[in-house]
Formats: sequence, C-alpha cells, structure tokens
Amino acid sequence: VQFHRRDYPRFFAVKIALLGAGTVGGGVLRLLRENRAQIAKRAGQEITPVIVAVRDVDRARQRLGYDDVLLSDDALSAATHPDADAVVELIGGESIARECALAALANNRPLVTANKALLAKSGAEIFQAAAARNLTVGFEAAIGGAIPIVKTLREALAANRVDAVCGIINGTCNFILSAMEKSDCDFAAALAEATKLGYAEADPSLDLSGADAAHKIALIAALAFGAPPRFAEVKIQGIAGINGADIRAARDFGYCIKLLAIARRTDSGALVYVRPALLPHGHLLAAVGGAMNAVMVDADAAGDTIYYGAGAGSAPTASAVVADLIDLAAKRAGLPPECDAPLTVADLRLHPTPHYLRFTVIDRPGVLAQIAQILAARMISIEAIRQTESRENEPVDVVFLTHKSAHGAVLDAAAEIERLDFVAHPATVMAIEEL
Amino acid sequence: VQFHRRDYPRFFAVKIALLGAGTVGGGVLRLLRENRAQIAKRAGQEITPVIVAVRDVDRARQRLGYDDVLLSDDALSAATHPDADAVVELIGGESIARECALAALANNRPLVTANKALLAKSGAEIFQAAAARNLTVGFEAAIGGAIPIVKTLREALAANRVDAVCGIINGTCNFILSAMEKSDCDFAAALAEATKLGYAEADPSLDLSGADAAHKIALIAALAFGAPPRFAEVKIQGIAGINGADIRAARDFGYCIKLLAIARRTDSGALVYVRPALLPHGHLLAAVGGAMNAVMVDADAAGDTIYYGAGAGSAPTASAVVADLIDLAAKRAGLPPECDAPLTVADLRLHPTPHYLRFTVIDRPGVLAQIAQILAARMISIEAIRQTESRENEPVDVVFLTHKSAHGAVLDAAAEIERLDFVAHPATVMAIEEL
Repeated sequence: VQFHRRDYPRFFAVKIALLGAGTVGGGVLRLLRENRAQIAKRAGQEITPVIVAVRDVDRARQRLGYDDVLLSDDALSAATHPDADAVVELIGGESIARECALAALANNRPLVTANKALLAKSGAEIFQAAAARNLTVGFEAAIGGAIPIVKTLREALAANRVDAVCGIINGTCNFILSAMEKSDCDFAAALAEATKLGYAEADPSLDLSGADAAHKIALIAALAFGAPPRFAEVKIQGIAGINGADIRAARDFGYCIKLLAIARRTDSGALVYVRPALLPHGHLLAAVGGAMNAVMVDADAAGDTIYYGAGAGSAPTASAVVADLIDLAAKRAGLPPECDAPLTVADLRLHPTPHYLRFTVIDRPGVLAQIAQILAARMISIEAIRQTESRENEPVDVVFLTHKSAHGAVLDAAAEIERLDFVAHPATVMAIEEL
Repeated sequence: VQFHRRDYPRFFAVKIALLGAGTVGGGVLRLLRENRAQIAKRAGQEITPVIVAVRDVDRARQRLGYDDVLLSDDALSAATHPDADAVVELIGGESIARECALAALANNRPLVTANKALLAKSGAEIFQAAAARNLTVGFEAAIGGAIPIVKTLREALAANRVDAVCGIINGTCNFILSAMEKSDCDFAAALAEATKLGYAEADPSLDLSGADAAHKIALIAALAFGAPPRFAEVKIQGIAGINGADIRAARDFGYCIKLLAIARRTDSGALVYVRPALLPHGHLLAAVGGAMNAVMVDADAAGDTIYYGAGAGSAPTASAVVADLIDLAAKRAGLPPECDAPLTVADLRLHPTPHYLRFTVIDRPGVLAQIAQILAARMISIEAIRQTESRENEPVDVVFLTHKSAHGAVLDAAAEIERLDFVAHPATVMAIEEL
C-alpha cells in the first residue's frame, strides 16, 4: 500500500461551464475572481469559467461585467461545451436543470449543483448516472448554504454510525418564527417583514410549506443512512398554521417554536420529516435566530455536534459551490451517495414524543372533562394545562402539554376533540422534540 | 484535464501502527472494531492495527482484550514497524512523541496525531519533514475533539479569506467558568467539581494556564492564515485570576466570562492569543456550557459559521483520528500546512476593544475621581460604572466598562491604579470581545 499523495500537475486551468448567473451564479463568478490566487493555490490549479449560461445575454453582460467569458442563453449546449472540464448547475427548478445535469454526466463531466429539489426528487437517477461513469457530484451548496454539512457527514463523521440529524434548514421559516417570537407579531406581519428584507421570495410557498426543508433533509438522510428516501415518503408540515397565540403559549411553558427537519434512525426504519415543533429555550438550536441555519448531528462516537451558519445568500452559497470545485480540482471530491435501494422509512404516526395541543373553546362547564376523557381514552396522559382568562362570550384557549405519546394517537385525539360542538377553531398540534 | 476519480483498489487492509492506547488510543481501537464494516466501506478498504505501542504490555493485553494485535513497549520501534502503512501518534507530550513522528516520516509513512503541544511547538519541523517526502499529516483530533475544524478550514472554507477564528477550545476551563456561573461558586470549588467529574486532570496546569488552548489556536492560525505563528509569540492568559465577584459583576452587565482563543487578521499582522474575556449573553458562544467546545469562523464569503461539539473524551477524539485514517485510505488527505516563513504576529497591546475593570478599594471620598483621572489621562473613556454597596470598614468593588481602548493602555492604567494606596487587591482586567 502506498500512501503518497499523487503529485498533481499544478497550475493549469480548470475550466467550468456555469449554468445560471443569478444570485448564486453571480456569487460564484465574484468569488472566483476576488479570491483567485488563493483558490488556485488551494486547488492546485486555476478555476475559470469558460462559458456561462444566462437567460438574457445582453443584460448579463452588463450586470456581470465579464468581458473574457463566453455567455450563452442555451443552457443545454453550455452543459456539454467541449472546453468545459466540469459543469456547475445553478439554474434551479427541476426540468431544464435535470436535463442539463444528465447531459453533463453523459458527456463524462463531473457535476456541481446547489439544486436540492432536483436531487431530492431525481437524485437516484443523477447519482446512478454519475456512478456509472465514476464521476463525482458535488452538492454542498444544496443544504445549509455555507454550512459544510455534506462534507461533515461524508468525511468528518465517516467513522460514526449517525443516529439522528436535526436541522433548522429553511431561513425564511426561521426568520418568520423568530420575528413572531421577538416582536410578538402575527404570521402575516412576520411574512411581510421577511419579504421586505429579501428573506422570502415573491412566491414563498416552497419555503412556507416545508417542501424546501424536506428536499434538504431527504439528501441528509441519504448521506447519513447510506440510502435515499423516496421523496413522497418524507412527511412534511409547514408553518402557515402557527399563530401568535401558539408562540406565546409555548413561551409560557419555556419553549420556542422552530421548523425542524429531522432524520432519525429507529428500529423500524428511518424517520424523515419536517414539521414545526417545540424546543426548550435552553437548547442551542432554540438560540438560532433570524434567517440563520443550524444542523445538529447525533453520532455514536462523536456525540452531538452542531454546525451553524448562513443557509442562503449569494456569497455563502458560492463559498460552498467553490469548495466543491476545489475538492474536484484537488481530486478529493467524493463519489455520489449509493442509490441501490431506497431507505426504509418508518411511520411518523408511531413515533412517541411529548406534544403541545391548543384548543379554542367556548367556556362552559364540562369542556375540560370532555377533552380530558378523549385524551385518556387514547392513553395520552397530560403533563400540564393552561387556560387563558375567559371574558364573557369569548372563546378561551386551552393548552395541553402531554407526556410521551405516539404522534398518530395525538392527531386522532385532536381531530376527535375538534369535532365537539364547543370547539371554535381548528386545534394546533405540535410535537415537543427531545433532542 | 481528466476528472475521473481513480478506481482505487478496494478492500485490502490498511495496517496502522498505533502509538499509545490510553483514553484516545483505546477509543480508536474500540471504534475501528465496533464500526469495522462501515469504516471499511467508507475508506474503500479495511483499517486494522498491526502493532500497538503501550506502556505496560501485560496490563494493556488484559485491558484491551485484543488477542490478534502485536503489543510493544517500544514506541520508536513500533513507529517504524515494517508492516505498518501509516503511524498514529497518541502518546502525547513532546519528546518521545516528536522522535516517533519524525521517525515515521523518515520511514516514508504518513502520520496521524492528536498532539497539539507537539505540533504547536515542533510543527514546522514535522510538517517540513512530511512535505519533503510528499506525505500527509492528519491532526483533526488535535483541536476540538469531534469538531471537524481542521477539515473545515482546509477544505470547506478553502475559497474564503478567513478574517478571524474565535474558539472555546479548552473544555476544562469552560467547565469551570460555566460551573462558577451556574452554581455561583468560587474558582476552587468549580475546579474541585471538574476534577471529581474527570473534566480536569490531576495536574490541570496546562489547561488552566491557557497553554493547551494556545497550542490549538496556534495550529488554527497556521491553517487560517497559511503560515504558523512562532509559539512564543502567542499571548496567553489563563483563568486562575477569575473569581466569583467577576462572574457576578459581568452578569449584572449582561455578560458571561469565557476563555477565548482568538486568531484575527489585522493590517499589521495576525493577532493570536488566549485570554478570559466577556461575551454578551445573547451571543451563541455564550451558550456553550460545560466541557463543550465551539469554534466560530469569520470568513469573507461564508460569513460567520460556528462548529460545536465535544472537545475531548475517548470516543469523540477517536472519531476525528479515524476520520483522518479514512481520508488517508481514500487518498484525499491533505498535505501539511506550509511552513516556509512564520506568521507575522501583531501586538495585542495595540488591539482596541471595550474592557472590563474591577478594583477593590477602600471606600473614601475622591477614590472614583482619582481612578477616572488616570483612565482619562490615557484616553480611556468610561461606558458604565457600578459599585457594590459599601459596608463600614469593608472595601468595595468598583467595576468599569470602557469604550473601545487599546489593550496595553488599559493594562497600564490598571497597573497605575493598583499602586494607589486605597486599592486593596490586584485589579481584574478583561477585554469584552466583539465578535
């Protein structure tokens, strides 16, 4: 066995085809230019764009100010440009991006992408196409922006059995929940603030619905457990149902509400899900505010480790893309995750945690007794109850914290309670995550 | 340019010489055995100990329960064992460890070590010996236990100019300061508790003096800035001077006290230092309790990222050692940091931050005026003052927070104030770090 590092040829150029020059692509171009000397040194060679695919060539020429690079509005041709050694897909979306990624691999070019939707849904196809040609696929930028969670799971924790990963990996949702907590405002006001500051897109539905976080946790599960989940099996719940009353009630009990994306090994398979949940105020993830991201990994040897940073934005995401390119140039990029068989996904309904339940009820005798009876009938035992002071003819909020109970049993109980005639609004049901 | 990953030969064994089978070495043996199949898969080949150097062969044979591995009490011979493909140095200390490391490299074997004292002081010699033979040196386990800060600085943030790194990287000191904060106890009681729980060694001086954290920040500076500092130029202050009164006074102003190890780029060179300092309670590093470690990196593209985990202990440190071995086996281990010229280290005395000063004084008219005059004469302006209630004939504590002032000016002013006849005890002077 010889352990010498190969003497790589040094300081010839690595030419890339860059597909997309928007927020992230523009950041990659800027970073490659601004830190050019250092990147060349670390990579062992220069990394230069040979062609950039954009929507509008003239506008892009003005905006980017690059005179020495070929611009094209034909992404698919750019993906197979004969001078490109590697292809960076930053178009986003699923159809053209998928075509370009597969074309690049078919043309024997390694791929770097920030496209979590693409990989979560078509990952098996793309990873298999890469593996068949012994090509690498870099996707550090697809999860958690600047946070090196892909490298950490693949390399730094490679000796560990990973038992659970829990992340705050959607900056938009975290900004909104943090704003509701901090300013005691309602969901709509917090969303407006997020939009104004650029933390929410014009159409924020992919973020608010939990789908974006689900794409990322599906990829994390593939890395952590060695097999990708079928995306349709990932349980997803967004934050649209959370209101100020929940934030305040949770706070009174010593909790905050976070949108958590979780992948957890269990005896009956892996749980992979996204949902708003309660975290105790003392927990380090509870302190992750604004649009920041953080990922906690529970591994058998390393124990709990946490990785925190900007989950989005031009420069942080570009940092991850270029790190993948440097790994590629330095010939240490990792092979794609295995996709021989999908991950066995366990039933979240069977997963027991304590729960938070809030019911808005007409205040009259016997209400509490009826709710308590329904909970008891499903073996859900109550840990704490609080009721807001009642004003005449106004419904009151009753909040329950339960002991550990299966998620499905709690959902069923809540649905049964909601059908009672004294319940004024739909209930809020959230798990209390014990990390 | 060809970007195919090489097809490595798979599933032949990588044989290691393991020097030291104490806390960390024992952990490495356990981890290699327990996660054997996964490690072989990730590494592309099996990693097995071929010889283990121990202090007492008979005792080790019983304790380790390994029948199939050669034990030896001759570390230097083990370091050059003909069947070993790589050498893992976990002896600690500086003299024998240094000899063994150099012998391994001279014998053309790559090195993995957890020895921060060795690398901080003899790093240039060891790294140059490795570079001369194109050999790798893995030292992820030398800093922050399970936290992958070496890999992050070398690889994940490779596209960035790193501007500052700030770490809580001595678990013993953090345990003690956290215990003083939590239980309102004094230094001696907190140290006793740390010793009882195994967080402080029988001789804790290397930890309490700040030397251990200094070893680590010297290595971090070498990675972050591309050149190692001369260890003698690292400014070091330990935590022995901190007492309960400081913890309480800092808390009243909204701060906690942490032992911080900092490497910071400035116009006049790099600041590299270890000292107890104040951090505002809202800062994420302020929430790092017990014996845990955390490192914050401020990089130009990635922004602020934080890495948190167990900084010591058998399994977390073994996780890092085996990650280095897997990188080695997968042929993606990094070459040693460059050591052509030492880092230009800037003068900490010139570095301006806000400061905390506590004086214990005899309570009599004119005391405050005299202190304020001395501060004013050195252009140190006061942000806040608090004085404890005075009891007759008892000295009182007066605490000042200053605006940004050069560290040296504040130290000089404090020394001048200490010489006044109404000052009862030495002053406490700490920077307030603005991270």
